[in-house]
This record gives sequence, C-alpha cells and structure tokens, in this order.
Amino acid sequence: MSVMPALPADGRPTLDRTDPEGAVARAAAEVSNWGRWGDDDVLGTVNFLDDGKRREGAALVRRGVSFSLAQRFDMDGPQTGWRRRTNPVHTMLDTGVDAERGSQGFPHGFGGADDVVSMPLQCSTQWDGLGHIFDHGRAWNGRAAGDVVTSEGDRVTGIEHMAPHLAGRGVLLDLGRHLADGELPDGYAITEDDLRACMAAQGPTAQVGRGDIVLVRTGRLARARREGWAGYAGGPSAGLSFTTAGWLHRTEIAAVATDTWGFEVRPNEFDDAFQPLHQVAIPHIGLTVGEMWDLDALAADCAIDGRWDFFLTAAPIPVTGAVGAPVNPVAVK
Amino acid sequence: MSVMPALPADGRPTLDRTDPEGAVARAAAEVSNWGRWGDDDVLGTVNFLDDGKRREGAALVRRGVSFSLAQRFDMDGPQTGWRRRTNPVHTMLDTGVDAERGSQGFPHGFGGADDVVSMPLQCSTQWDGLGHIFDHGRAWNGRAAGDVVTSEGDRVTGIEHMAPHLAGRGVLLDLGRHLADGELPDGYAITEDDLRACMAAQGPTAQVGRGDIVLVRTGRLARARREGWAGYAGGPSAGLSFTTAGWLHRTEIAAVATDTWGFEVRPNEFDDAFQPLHQVAIPHIGLTVGEMWDLDALAADCAIDGRWDFFLTAAPIPVTGAVGAPVNPVAVK
Amino acid sequence: MSVMPALPADGRPTLDRTDPEGAVARAAAEVSNWGRWGDDDVLGTVNFLDDGKRREGAALVRRGVSFSLAQRFDMDGPQTGWRRRTNPVHTMLDTGVDAERGSQGFPHGFGGADDVVSMPLQCSTQWDGLGHIFDHGRAWNGRAAGDVVTSEGDRVTGIEHMAPHLAGRGVLLDLGRHLADGELPDGYAITEDDLRACMAAQGPTAQVGRGDIVLVRTGRLARARREGWAGYAGGPSAGLSFTTAGWLHRTEIAAVATDTWGFEVRPNEFDDAFQPLHQVAIPHIGLTVGEMWDLDALAADCAIDGRWDFFLTAAPIPVTGAVGAPVNPVAVK
Amino acid sequence: MSVMPALPADGRPTLDRTDPEGAVARAAAEVSNWGRWGDDDVLGTVNFLDDGKRREGAALVRRGVSFSLAQRFDMDGPQTGWRRRTNPVHTMLDTGVDAERGSQGFPHGFGGADDVVSMPLQCSTQWDGLGHIFDHGRAWNGRAAGDVVTSEGDRVTGIEHMAPHLAGRGVLLDLGRHLADGELPDGYAITEDDLRACMAAQGPTAQVGRGDIVLVRTGRLARARREGWAGYAGGPSAGLSFTTAGWLHRTEIAAVATDTWGFEVRPNEFDDAFQPLHQVAIPHIGLTVGEMWDLDALAADCAIDGRWDFFLTAAPIPVTGAVGAPVNPVAVK
Repeated sequence: MSVMPALPADGRPTLDRTDPEGAVARAAAEVSNWGRWGDDDVLGTVNFLDDGKRREGAALVRRGVSFSLAQRFDMDGPQTGWRRRTNPVHTMLDTGVDAERGSQGFPHGFGGADDVVSMPLQCSTQWDGLGHIFDHGRAWNGRAAGDVVTSEGDRVTGIEHMAPHLAGRGVLLDLGRHLADGELPDGYAITEDDLRACMAAQGPTAQVGRGDIVLVRTGRLARARREGWAGYAGGPSAGLSFTTAGWLHRTEIAAVATDTWGFEVRPNEFDDAFQPLHQVAIPHIGLTVGEMWDLDALAADCAIDGRWDFFLTAAPIPVTGAVGAPVNPVAVK
Repeated sequence: MSVMPALPADGRPTLDRTDPEGAVARAAAEVSNWGRWGDDDVLGTVNFLDDGKRREGAALVRRGVSFSLAQRFDMDGPQTGWRRRTNPVHTMLDTGVDAERGSQGFPHGFGGADDVVSMPLQCSTQWDGLGHIFDHGRAWNGRAAGDVVTSEGDRVTGIEHMAPHLAGRGVLLDLGRHLADGELPDGYAITEDDLRACMAAQGPTAQVGRGDIVLVRTGRLARARREGWAGYAGGPSAGLSFTTAGWLHRTEIAAVATDTWGFEVRPNEFDDAFQPLHQVAIPHIGLTVGEMWDLDALAADCAIDGRWDFFLTAAPIPVTGAVGAPVNPVAVK
Repeated sequence: MSVMPALPADGRPTLDRTDPEGAVARAAAEVSNWGRWGDDDVLGTVNFLDDGKRREGAALVRRGVSFSLAQRFDMDGPQTGWRRRTNPVHTMLDTGVDAERGSQGFPHGFGGADDVVSMPLQCSTQWDGLGHIFDHGRAWNGRAAGDVVTSEGDRVTGIEHMAPHLAGRGVLLDLGRHLADGELPDGYAITEDDLRACMAAQGPTAQVGRGDIVLVRTGRLARARREGWAGYAGGPSAGLSFTTAGWLHRTEIAAVATDTWGFEVRPNEFDDAFQPLHQVAIPHIGLTVGEMWDLDALAADCAIDGRWDFFLTAAPIPVTGAVGAPVNPVAVK
Repeated sequence: MSVMPALPADGRPTLDRTDPEGAVARAAAEVSNWGRWGDDDVLGTVNFLDDGKRREGAALVRRGVSFSLAQRFDMDGPQTGWRRRTNPVHTMLDTGVDAERGSQGFPHGFGGADDVVSMPLQCSTQWDGLGHIFDHGRAWNGRAAGDVVTSEGDRVTGIEHMAPHLAGRGVLLDLGRHLADGELPDGYAITEDDLRACMAAQGPTAQVGRGDIVLVRTGRLARARREGWAGYAGGPSAGLSFTTAGWLHRTEIAAVATDTWGFEVRPNEFDDAFQPLHQVAIPHIGLTVGEMWDLDALAADCAIDGRWDFFLTAAPIPVTGAVGAPVNPVAVK
C-alpha cells in the first residue's frame, strides 16, 4: 500500500477524488513516524536537524549576504477574516509626537515610544506547530488532541519547544521558475516528479536530504503582491500534491516551507476536502511546516549565483503553548 | 570634553549626580553618529554589520550546537504594568478539544487548532528600534521625533528595516561570572574597565570590535527566575554605566544586548534621572539595543569550552513601523 | 453670518463646494458653545440632559416594551480596515468543550467558560466622545488638542465622564420612512427643512427640544444588512447636511445618533473634505454623537403605534480616557 | 430534601464542609428551572422580567437623578492575572497631539483621535452569561456544555440574546450597611435570614419579588478602593451563602448583582471547593449574575431618601457568543 498511486499515461499520479478520508488513512499508515523518537517526543522531524547539519549549513556561508524571508507584519496583509484570523493590529502606547511636545513626564529631555501588537499567530510568515492539525482527534505521536491542545494552549508540543532548533541547511526549490515563468498557475499540484526534476535542474546544491529545511517557491506571493491579497489566504494556489506525503517522509527533511497560505495545492485534490496533506504531514509525519514565507529575493539571488543552499535560521517567537508562531527566517549565503 | 570623567583614586569614574541633562548633552556631542551614513539612514550601527562579519560569524560554528536566547512569551513574564506594558496574552481560536469532539465543521476527520497573541512589542526578549528613544525631541540621525514616530508608528526607522541584517558574530561578556559569583548586585554600574577586564579574562574569543553583536550577562534574569519577577521590569539591576557611552561608540559594535530589563544600571547614576544611557545610545549613537535576553545556558556552555564568540542570528519580527520587536535570538557554536 | 446659506429656488441650501475650511470657520463661529458651561466642562451638550428630562423620559414608558439599538459585536461587522479599525475579535479563554472533558482542574464537577475581546472602541454601535474630533488643533471648549488626547488617551474629556448621564427622552426621526420608502439614497443630505417636515409628519411625540437625544434613521443599516457591509464604513451614505449645524445647536439637544457610519452625509458636500460637520459639532457645539445604531426594530414599532418618543438609556462602557465607546442603547416605550 | 440545611442553635445554617459535590447535586435538584421556558430557552430567569415589570420600574423615577454602577475600565483595575484575565488595555490609533501637529493627512484643519481596547469580557463590571458556568458538563437548560460553548464562543446562549431585556425594577439590599458599618468582613456568608432582615429594615421599597434585579452591596469594593486591589479578584470576600440558592430560586428574581468579584462568599463554605453557588445558580436556576458593580454612590443616596428601588437599565455590550459582557448599569430614581 502506497500513498503514491499508480501513474497513468501522462505520468501524473491520480487520486480517487471521492475518498479523501481513505486516502488520508492510507497515507498516514505509510508515513507515520509515531513512536520513532519515543513517547515523549515534542519535535517530530526537527529531530533530524542535528549539530552536524548545523555545521554543514554554516559552511555554506561564502559571501555573507543575508536575506529575510518574512513578510512585513501589518494591516496590509494576507488575512481576510477566515476563522477570525485578522491581520496584525499595531498600536502605539507612546509616540515621538508626544515626546516632542514634552507631555510624557520624563526628566532631562528623555522621550520614548512604545507599542503593542495584537495578531493571530498564523497571520503572516509563520511555522505551524505540531499541535496545529489533528487527524480524527489524534495529534502528533498519537496523542489525543484534547490532551494536547485545550483553551490553555498546546500543553505538550507548544512552539516554545522549537525555540533553539531551527537553524541549519536550507535548500530552495524554485518550482515557479522551474515549471513556469516564475509563477505556477493556481491549482497546480506539485508532484514528487516535479520536485526531483527541479532538483536535477538546479544542480548539486539543490539536493535535499535528512535534516534539511526545504523551501518550495511557487510564485503565489509574487502574484499577490502584484494583484492584491484577494484569494491568497485560503483561495486557489499552486502547492504540494497530496501525493508528496511519501517524499516528505522518505527524504527525512526537518521542515518544509512555501510562499503560499497553506503549502499544499488548493483546491485540494479531492471533491470535498480540506487540507488533507496537512492531516498527514503534521500529526503523522510530525513535520514542521512553514507558510507565507517570502522567497522571492532569495530565489532571485540563487538563480544568479546558481547556489540553492544556504545557512537558514528560522527561530519562532516562543509563545508558550502556541500552535504556530511568527518567524523572521534569515538565510545567509 | 569626554563622556568618560576623570577617574578618582578607586579607579571608578564619577559623574555629577545632579546634572543628568548636562551629562547627556556632553556624551551626545562626543559620540554622535548623526550623518555618518547619510541623511536617509535607518540602520545606525547595524551598518557596521557587513557581509564580512557574517562570514566571520559563520566560521565560528564548530560543534553545531544551538542556543535560543529568548525567554518564553507568556503571562508568567516580566511585566508588571509599567506604562501599560502587560505580559503576552495568548488565546485560542480553535483547540484539540474542539477537534476531538467533532464540532469544527471540517470534512474527513480533519481538525485544527489556531491561536492569537496580544502583547506589547517590548514585553519580553526584544530589540529596541531606533525610534524607541528620543533626546529633547530628536530621534536617530537628528530627525524630529514627531516626524518619525506618530500614532501610526515609526514611519522612518521602523523595526522592519532591520529584518535581514542582524546575523553575524556574537560575543558574550559574562560580567556576572567575571565580577561576582554569577550574579552582579543590583545597582552595580558596569564600567569600561570592567568590560576590558572581562574580555581579557575570557581570552581572545571575547575580543570585541566593529560589527560585533555584544551580549552582556549580569545574572539579573537568573535571579528573577529564582526569586520572582518583582523588580525585574523597571526596578534595581546591574547594568552598563552611563560612562560606557564612549566605549559603545568607539568599538563600533553593531548592537548590544543584556539579560536585564533596561541594559543600563538601575537606579541610574544621577539623582533624578530616567535611562540616560538610552538617551545617548539610541538617538545619538544609533545603537540597536536588546533587552531581557536569556543568556544563561549559552554562558554556561561558553564557560565550559572557553569560546565566547558564535554565530548569532537575532532577526526581529518585522512589524511595520514598530519601535521595538520580539526576537528569538539563536546562537550557534 | 449664518451657517444656513441662502436657499435657491428648489428650497435646498447651497454651499460653496470649494471652501470647506471657510464654511467650517463660519459655522463654528455661529454655533460655538465654548465657555457656556465653564472652563472645566467635560460634558458639552449633555449638560442639557437634566433630571427633569429624565423624569419626562420615564413618563413615556407605557407598554414597557424594550428595544436594543445595538448591532451585534462580532467579526461580521461594518469595519473594513479604515485607519486600522477592525471588527471585534472575540476569543475564548475557557470553553464548555474543555469543561465537559474535565480538563480544567476545578473540583466537584465545576466547569467554566471565559472570554476576551479586542476591538476598536468605534468599531460598531458607539458614542463619539468629546475628544474624538478637533478643529485646527482645538478640542471641545477651546482646549489644545494635544493637552487633551495624548497616547495615554483623553485625559480631560474621556468617555468615562459620560457614564451616568445618558438616560432621558429619546426621539426617533425616521427620515428614511418620511422621505423615501424606508431607505434614503446615498449622498442624500438631510436638511433642517427635512427634519422639521419629518417632525411635523410624525406628530406631537416627535417634537425635539432641549435635552433630548435625537435618533435619525436613514435606512443605511437596513441596506447594509441586505446587501453587505461594502461601503458602509466610510463609503457613501445619506446623513445630516453640513447645514444642520445651526439646528443641532439651536435645538439644544443633548445628543444625536444615526444608523450610519458617520452621521453626516457622504460624500461630504464639498469637493475635497472629510466630515466637516463633525469638525463643527464635536469641538464647537460640544455635541455627543452616536453612530452605527440599529434603529430598525424601534422604527417599525413607532410606525405602528404612532409614538416616536421613549425612555432611552445609552450608557457607554466607561473606558478611562476613551475618545469613544461601545454602547448598547435600550429604548423603553 | 432542601438546599437549606437544618438550623443549629445559633440560627445560621450549616453545611457538610466535606461534600460540596453532594450539596451542589441536592441544591440543583431542588432549584432547577430546566425546561421551565421550553427546550429552546436562552434567557433563563430574565424571562421573569416582563413589560409589566418595566412599567413598574419606570414609575419609580421621581427625582430623575441617575447613577452609573460601573467601575472605570482601565489598567488600574481589579485583575491580577487569574486564568489570564488582565485589566483592559486601552491604546490610541490617533491622538490630539498628532492632530495638533498636522500629521494626520486630513483636509481643512480636521483632526481626529481614535482608540482600541483589549480586555477580558469579565475583567470589570459585567454580567455573567448563561454559558459562563457548567455543572458536570451541563449548561443551562440541561444542554451539553460542549454543544453550547466551543472555541467559537457560546453558540446557543451568547450574551447577545440579553441585549434588549435587562431594563426594569432594581432593588438594592445594602448588607454592608445593614449588618456592619458599611463593609462586611471577608468570609461573611450572607444568608436568607440576613436578606430578609435587610429587606425588613430597609422598608417597603426594598421588597424583592418576581422579575426584579436585585443588587447586594457588601462593601468589598469600597474597601478595595481604600486598600488596593490585592485579594479583590478571587480572594476572600463577603458574599451570598451557598444556602441562598433556594431563595434565589423561590423569589423568581430576574438577576442578581454584587460589588464583589464573585457574588458568593469566599472562601467558599466547603473545605475544597470553587464557587459552588455559581454551579447551581447559573446552569440550574438559569440566573443572570452581575459582578464587580459599583453600588456605593447609589447606596449612599438610598440611605438618605429611604427609597431602595429604582429604574435600572443594565444592557450588556452584545458581543456575539460571549459568555459574559461588560455593562454600564444606570439606575434612575
């Protein structure tokens, strides 16, 4: 039994569009990492990212140039209200205008500005935590979802456990550039064959293996920047095919991130479905997934120098018990 | 005229405790970097952190071990309400308990958890932005404070401009360990002599120069962890002496961070004053300052292997127009 | 000099569309109440609402039927992001699902739910405070705007001062019903003549005088309910003409509220303008203005029984220093 | 079987301190209103507050004087962090200082201030909704708690259903004045006998019956104002005895409110218990409960004129799905 269905004549995998639940169950059985790192594990595939991988990553720094892979966090952002996700609301507690006017009450000409933010933790560039998605009431490592994430937050696999780990070798696979003119069309399901072909085309620096953090660029964010946010958060997009679950598992990558809202293709590859690859990847593989990353400047640089790997530090803000967290990933080449 | 006053017999600098305004003015005149990087500069001393420094930093990765220097962000945090700064409030939009009960309305057994945070941007481990502090209504580079930070945020030097830059060589100076038994007493003003002596004692890996990110550990956080948060946010603490302004300027470091609430000694070294070193360092030197960093685990490791420098990535969440931002700094050795 | 311009042949007042600043200045000079209630006044026209008016209001209760004039506060609300105004975000701290599962840690079968809201104070049914609008840097009673509302809030005329006062006689003028088929067209400027004619048509219970709280229904909310929120918050709408400033002043009403976003007509009656009637009514008349009230059910009832006045209690949540506040107004007939 | 235990020699009821669960079960069986208003009921005892009661309330307005019974909502408030309840955080989106400086971008001298609040719905003066408390996983009217309040809020009995109803006859029982010198000692359990004696002492205007909103003053808030908030939110306090459940049910009052954090006596009258009277009153009686009301000014007035009833409008902000809501109750005499 394999998550990868037989290939028809055109070489692209097919799925029974009427049975997402069966497909999820079969894929889950095939790729499950439950128990692999013990009953108490809180890291999942981030366990693959070890000290050796960090040494390998650091050795990739040649020019010393750095790229932030974060979008800006503000009200001109991707969210349009799906499940109460708003854009970040940033307000000031003190300002320069107040300071200048001398009304702050500080001595010797001192003035200050201070501010507050209120935001969904997954409103912009972010990591999904292992408590973000469940399959039939089961969280990562087979735990009951209700034992893990209550109204008090994720009491077992909160994002704070990831705080020191996510620094290592990053690899960018620019599928938008490889398959199209920079931007894949909405609904394009990136297959394992596509990923392999992209690696081959990009050359040796694009080879992906155990412990790597893999960044898949579709071009969807570039289009949103040009055309507006409508449809970006939750609408149609290119993304990973459900059938890549086996590849995500087999390669033993530490994490994957994309420039899209939901990393997998939308509409999903079933008639009535919602993010079935999440349902396999997070609770069963234990995969840490990044979304809404801005890969465009990095991709442009990689295309020029032909080197697709780099030292990547992507340390989430360790909000205790969070099921996701904002991150400003920095790639250094 | 020098910010560093004459040394009395005991070798410690003295200040006229009755004249903070004069002291600030003299120090500002001595250390000002206004105009150094042009009229449009938004980075200040982060300009010193160049690609070469990032290459130097990456070359320090030997073992591949990584340390998060962030505190956890939750309601058990440092804040006690000073100027409306609260601790982070983390609430859930969806939970595992809901998913388990099947009330979320998703198909094929899919379940999800989602969450929100509301927090002051300087509530926990953070960078001060260049728009955080003003001197007599002037912001970094001589701009009018009211031209920079309005109720809409910092429209000139917002923290988003720092997004890709803060990765390079970090150096830890463990003054708590050097001068005391791990924890300096409250009110201890760390002087330039102290910093030099600590560097000398820690050896060649602790030498500080242009473009470095310098981390000064006092032990104050370690004590707060043991004794509670009372007094941590705004109360007495060891910290840098006002007289270190010259050193901060002369060394051409890119940034400095400490394990205290306010990086400078408290009570301040004047009779009636509020954070006078901030008033020089941020608007005049253009120095990026980090506060409430957790340096304890890293310090323990450095004490063991005798290596006090490392590759440090400390990328703030790029909230547009923010005058400070949360960060999860990661040191890799 | 009068705010009411000469009437042309069609009986409707005209304004010089090219000179909003002059029109505001002339109207302000004509209707100013500065100093009327002393230098320290914080209530403005709410001073007109005295105990006698409350007795008069209470005497209007005949059937005992009550109407809430508040919209529901939730994410399906009027806001679309204008100046960072979002809809209310309501999140849970504890839920029934948690309680049911027994994971809350309470004894003897006790369970609880608790919640949080984050919202602009003027996101839905609200009162504008006297510190909400300024004219050329002047707030109500002639105070410097910067002396009144800083980043710490309205330190002089905060909405908390209104807490006990806003209960008295309310009068509904249903201009939507009077002039149209229930809903006025966008851009319709309600004039003093319109108001007088509506009062006359509605009969003796609709007469407006000193200390009354006047509710003007345009039908705009009814249309938003039917057609969606697009354009409701900030877009075109019927509303009071700029030329009603004299009437608002002369009648000595305590407050006015409408079912629209901004109580005055939009587009405004000048070529390049923003809410010029606000600029006169709030800082100069000292008028308390209510917006986004839901007057539909009350209006339907009044049309049936022919009685247009009632006891109205509209007590804002007294957020200290707020320049506006949510309110659930209750009319009892 | 009665919730009111046998009285010992001293006339005060006793409870088996070791069996809160049994006591709750017995009381619940005795006072349950489940099904009384049909399976779909969302109002509970507020059903008792009918139009006749509103007419009766309005007729109590003699002088026209009004009292706000709300505390001010700000950071100097009761909360100290219990279950993530903070005090309200009020921040500005625009200020008078900005307006004065001319940096807001509006035409013709227009300036504005705008603000935001973030707060727990039960942080200050509030009504508990019917979805606030559960007994063994059961909510009001016998519904499963998890069918009522999920992470999306109270989908059945949200506070919005109360929006038009809570206006009627209010009666103040000043137990603090009746039993003590204005302030009852912490831990004092107010019994049915105490309530009856207070009514008798206060005279005919203090008689309580069907549909009334009963306000019980203990003096706890007055002490907090004098001594500080420590202990107010969740600490020891006078309050209603568990044994008043029968009285709360039998009198058919519409609602009850107090000047304390939790309306019932604390410490609770059992060895290991948490708010057992809530567990009976809310899910079983269907009683709407108000907390942290400021009754002091009203009580002083009632003591002078000897009239203890009044027209009370206490309309909660109708946050959709909320299990509680802030309110500014206004009493008019």
